[in-house]
Amino acid sequence: MRLIIGKPLGFCFGVKRAIDELEKALKKYGNIYALGSPIHNEEEVKRLKSLGLRLVESVEELPSQSIVFIRAHGTTPEVLKQAKHKGCTIIDGTCPSVKNAQEKARLLSEEGYEVVIVGDPNHPEVQSIKGCVSAYASVINSSKDVATFPNKDKIGVVSQTTQEEGALLSVVSALVPKARELRVYNTICKATLHRQEAVRKLAADTEGVIVIGGHNSTNTAKLVEVAKREGCDVLWIANPQEIDESWLYGKHIIGIAAGASTPDWLIKEVISLLSRR
Amino acid sequence: MRLIIGKPLGFCFGVKRAIDELEKALKKYGNIYALGSPIHNEEEVKRLKSLGLRLVESVEELPSQSIVFIRAHGTTPEVLKQAKHKGCTIIDGTCPSVKNAQEKARLLSEEGYEVVIVGDPNHPEVQSIKGCVSAYASVINSSKDVATFPNKDKIGVVSQTTQEEGALLSVVSALVPKARELRVYNTICKATLHRQEAVRKLAADTEGVIVIGGHNSTNTAKLVEVAKREGCDVLWIANPQEIDESWLYGKHIIGIAAGASTPDWLIKEVISLLSRR
Repeated sequence: MRLIIGKPLGFCFGVKRAIDELEKALKKYGNIYALGSPIHNEEEVKRLKSLGLRLVESVEELPSQSIVFIRAHGTTPEVLKQAKHKGCTIIDGTCPSVKNAQEKARLLSEEGYEVVIVGDPNHPEVQSIKGCVSAYASVINSSKDVATFPNKDKIGVVSQTTQEEGALLSVVSALVPKARELRVYNTICKATLHRQEAVRKLAADTEGVIVIGGHNSTNTAKLVEVAKREGCDVLWIANPQEIDESWLYGKHIIGIAAGASTPDWLIKEVISLLSRR
Repeated sequence: MRLIIGKPLGFCFGVKRAIDELEKALKKYGNIYALGSPIHNEEEVKRLKSLGLRLVESVEELPSQSIVFIRAHGTTPEVLKQAKHKGCTIIDGTCPSVKNAQEKARLLSEEGYEVVIVGDPNHPEVQSIKGCVSAYASVINSSKDVATFPNKDKIGVVSQTTQEEGALLSVVSALVPKARELRVYNTICKATLHRQEAVRKLAADTEGVIVIGGHNSTNTAKLVEVAKREGCDVLWIANPQEIDESWLYGKHIIGIAAGASTPDWLIKEVISLLSRR
């Protein structure tokens, strides 16, 4: 069996930076509280917990004076204020691309634009961007949702950084007739686009693609979606134990892709296991 | 035969305003020089010529000290400067919607955006908008032309006021991946949209639509295009003499539409002729 490894794959710059910061802080302080799972990958979370990471879901659960890690998805100014009020020390792992989207949303709001965030309303990154807008901000996931959007003088758009470009394009296009002025910051992270392009290429060049990544990871789910749309046979695994023998059967060329939240060590484990066959 | 008259039809606000200004000036001064045909309708131009209008194609042909009429499509600051230099008096018939598009294009350019005008590069309105941008401005007529457009930091978009909305939407959508920031002023005039909606409705409700308007009028051509796209049998006439008997034969319900540059008196002539049948 021949393996073709997609390029790029695995940790993007923002996730790598956040996890590096977190590991450094764990070595320095021992115990760190993460507000929400620091990464959508259970295997990596297990490893970080073994180094002293503790997970809490809300700012209320944070012990006062504790060391708090803000994940790559970012958080709202309100949460930061509450954590500081408790005397916590902040280790900020917010991805620079997310920070940029937060700043652009804030800027648009300050300049009187009706802010629209193109993304998943339940995703923590989108919630962190929304929290940076002092006025109301709408979250729109698809051009279908634009039909009921009211006409406005000025509409300002930012995107979830891991959004598929096609979705942003169609929402923007649908918003043009709704405003006299439409200002769009394309805050999609190139890392996401490049991983999607890589998987599209793998789909064309192989008999099937294994996508490695947490089942709760949006960007991994998007890779699976992109590959399936290309008519590709896809196997989505969170760890080497999920490799399905019957799926492998009869395939001679297999592609390997991995989400931006999939750690290198996990990718290596899967590749090494498959190479030995 | 039953006639259904589309609503709205004929002169839009901007054209009516320009022609009213011109007639007032003709009464006051006798002879007026128009820089380019004041309206894309030969019948109306004939009538205005009989009142003292003279047509010139360039500023060089203008006699010094003459009275000059600027048509609804507008002109460039450079042409205005040259006319003033010749001691000419300017009667400005530029449509307020075109003035708005000119100002928005200038503003975008001043704020460092790469300016894109969505429209027909040969149309005088587009040339007047382009002339208001001190830096370079690109004219794009369809999303296909965007493929070769280079990536830019900031792209600013305005539209020819008589552009079809679908074309603007698809160009904007194609430009999203080309810029980190995209700022769109939707300068399409509602009068154009409303006439297109009216003809779409006529196409559904009748056995055929007669579109009245000059064969050199872009907005009339767009009405014909919209009706044809709806699968409608269309007859495009510039004057009552062009009514085609064989086209009328066997039709019981006919719709009447007219471009924004078609004068009321011409529409009335056609309706009165058809009503007598």
